[in-house]
Amino acid sequence: MPIVTFTTDFGSGDGYAGAMKGVVLSLAPAAQLVDITHGVPPMDVAAGAVALAQAAPLFPPGTIHIAVVDPGVGGERADILIESGGSVFVGPDNGVLSLAARPPRRVYRIESSMFRRDPVSPTFHGRDVFAPTAGRLAAGAHATDAGPLIDTIVELSAPPLHKQGGVVEGQVIHLDSFGNLITSLPAELLDSGLGAEILIEVEGTEGRFRPVFGRTFSDVQSGALIAYIGSGGQLEIARRDGSAAARVGAARGTAVRVTVAPS
Amino acid sequence: MPIVTFTTDFGSGDGYAGAMKGVVLSLAPAAQLVDITHGVPPMDVAAGAVALAQAAPLFPPGTIHIAVVDPGVGGERADILIESGGSVFVGPDNGVLSLAARPPRRVYRIESSMFRRDPVSPTFHGRDVFAPTAGRLAAGAHATDAGPLIDTIVELSAPPLHKQGGVVEGQVIHLDSFGNLITSLPAELLDSGLGAEILIEVEGTEGRFRPVFGRTFSDVQSGALIAYIGSGGQLEIARRDGSAAARVGAARGTAVRVTVAPS
Amino acid sequence: MPIVTFTTDFGSGDGYAGAMKGVVLSLAPAAQLVDITHGVPPMDVAAGAVALAQAAPLFPPGTIHIAVVDPGVGGERADILIESGGSVFVGPDNGVLSLAARPPRRVYRIESSMFRRDPVSPTFHGRDVFAPTAGRLAAGAHATDAGPLIDTIVELSAPPLHKQGGVVEGQVIHLDSFGNLITSLPAELLDSGLGAEILIEVEGTEGRFRPVFGRTFSDVQSGALIAYIGSGGQLEIARRDGSAAARVGAARGTAVRVTVAPS
Repeated sequence: MPIVTFTTDFGSGDGYAGAMKGVVLSLAPAAQLVDITHGVPPMDVAAGAVALAQAAPLFPPGTIHIAVVDPGVGGERADILIESGGSVFVGPDNGVLSLAARPPRRVYRIESSMFRRDPVSPTFHGRDVFAPTAGRLAAGAHATDAGPLIDTIVELSAPPLHKQGGVVEGQVIHLDSFGNLITSLPAELLDSGLGAEILIEVEGTEGRFRPVFGRTFSDVQSGALIAYIGSGGQLEIARRDGSAAARVGAARGTAVRVTVAPS
Repeated sequence: MPIVTFTTDFGSGDGYAGAMKGVVLSLAPAAQLVDITHGVPPMDVAAGAVALAQAAPLFPPGTIHIAVVDPGVGGERADILIESGGSVFVGPDNGVLSLAARPPRRVYRIESSMFRRDPVSPTFHGRDVFAPTAGRLAAGAHATDAGPLIDTIVELSAPPLHKQGGVVEGQVIHLDSFGNLITSLPAELLDSGLGAEILIEVEGTEGRFRPVFGRTFSDVQSGALIAYIGSGGQLEIARRDGSAAARVGAARGTAVRVTVAPS
Repeated sequence: MPIVTFTTDFGSGDGYAGAMKGVVLSLAPAAQLVDITHGVPPMDVAAGAVALAQAAPLFPPGTIHIAVVDPGVGGERADILIESGGSVFVGPDNGVLSLAARPPRRVYRIESSMFRRDPVSPTFHGRDVFAPTAGRLAAGAHATDAGPLIDTIVELSAPPLHKQGGVVEGQVIHLDSFGNLITSLPAELLDSGLGAEILIEVEGTEGRFRPVFGRTFSDVQSGALIAYIGSGGQLEIARRDGSAAARVGAARGTAVRVTVAPS
């Protein structure tokens, strides 16, 4: 029973996600449909890419992941299908697949009429291209039938880290629905500081904050900020029993600095 | 494996939708449950009808669709089951099913005790009437066992178009979660204007707007309004990278005029 | 085909719920996944407990319910598994399971490495402990393999009723997404007043309100308050075509009094 997952910015209150599910089930009645989220902020490709990357690696091989955050739908950007890590990723070539579908990849443009409804609405490739592609694949079609192999895709990349002396500066790259700040600073940076003094600074609109570095929320008192290695392997900053984003005045791009000093 | 879909205004945070799913699975353990949406605005029957109509036609024949937007629950309105287009629709007789379950229809009142839990809560027919009905049908019961055939249902109908000279006036009939405006103006109206000059006007609280007529969002610059034939076959108005509803000050009922002039 | 349900406060926009689903399906590919809700207010254990208790009793025996509202994740509180009423409940020992998993119960600490991913993130036991536990159980593992039996769990209990003369005072214990107020006052209290005069008073920040006692919303005019026996068997207060919570200025803990006077 093939698994087909959905990650979209379709929000709540419309039948758009349902329409996609209907298309998949019409082509692959035995498919198992799984919602990852339909609550990606509207047209926020980077947030959709993070959501998919948080979830996709946990699914069994063979899973087909559809991601539709697609402000350029019907325009120049390609419809693509990526084979990566034993799974398949289907969506627009605008970066939304690029964090989850890691290299090595095989990438196909979706051009075959077998993988598209007729006609294709210029504003709803989710229903008319991506869902039929996933449905056909779930029913046994081969990715190679989708269209030509292509070499490159639009990549979202983590912003580069700036290192100077013992200080490394990264950024907030995602704010989750709890208001936790996920940064571009990898866990390894902190591991190297075991047994050392670690200073963490966040530059929010509400001021400069220096959260304690700990393991989990309950290591600090209610209302306090804490920095820790998050479940995705990056430095995160949270506020116990509250929203770090609101407290700090943080957004994507907010600077976060780590100083590891031998103690 | 029968498919059962759910369209409700139960929102987020409660166990109401889950309760309905439990009832269906208790009666039909092999049913495949599919959420269309639980985010219909509270008690907004028209919005629920649109959401269901956006999704239902894409599902395979035999699908059982439950829709519960039901401000009159427990009162005078009937509980009904509609066979239409090879699928089954279950919900209150208040119009929420009327856009998706198109004629010809066979309509039954749900009166049989086999299709109702005992007792039935006067405020939760979703759990106590509609879910058991769907579950029984998914397990093989016949619609004819539900209760008496009835002749008419409450219909939601599109507001009539006003035509005068070369001008056709319709209305915004739905605002989606992107802030796109779906109108009552059918695509055919615009098709007839191929090769002609098309003027589109929207009368919002923020002023009169004249969006460009195009194919898709990326036909205009970021922030601009665009009118296009939407994925449901009606004229829609969107704002690239933003919300047309907010820009225009539009609501359901906002007037939209199309003038097709030979060029 | 085992059923696994999900009740969380993960909200919308992230891949956290999807990650849990992927873990379950990796261990139990035939499991049927059912979302109860991911919209529990962040870190609101009591609201999560109510949502789970609204839905869980409707599911067939053998269902595995995961609930993750877990502000103390990674700290002192135990990871637990409860057998109750023929079903299984998995989550943190902070009360979130206590309303749905009624006594008699068998409670196990989840300690076995078979039921945990390695390593376990200190901030995401949903993915690394509760999902693998549910997946293993769905694949046939025995609860007894999880870890030691324990005697007590953290209980959420309804606030005590205060009775004086013919007056019983309870509280609002939950506000649902319609703005309906669910109280701690049981239906039996009102049943005893059949044929009697019933006075209901709510002490909100917007004043003292005396809703009519009826059966369902349509018993009163649009905009009026109504008190009725809710679908969960408690006194509820709603506003027809609106939000009682907003009208009354109610919150969890708002006092509600019932006076049953022989008529």
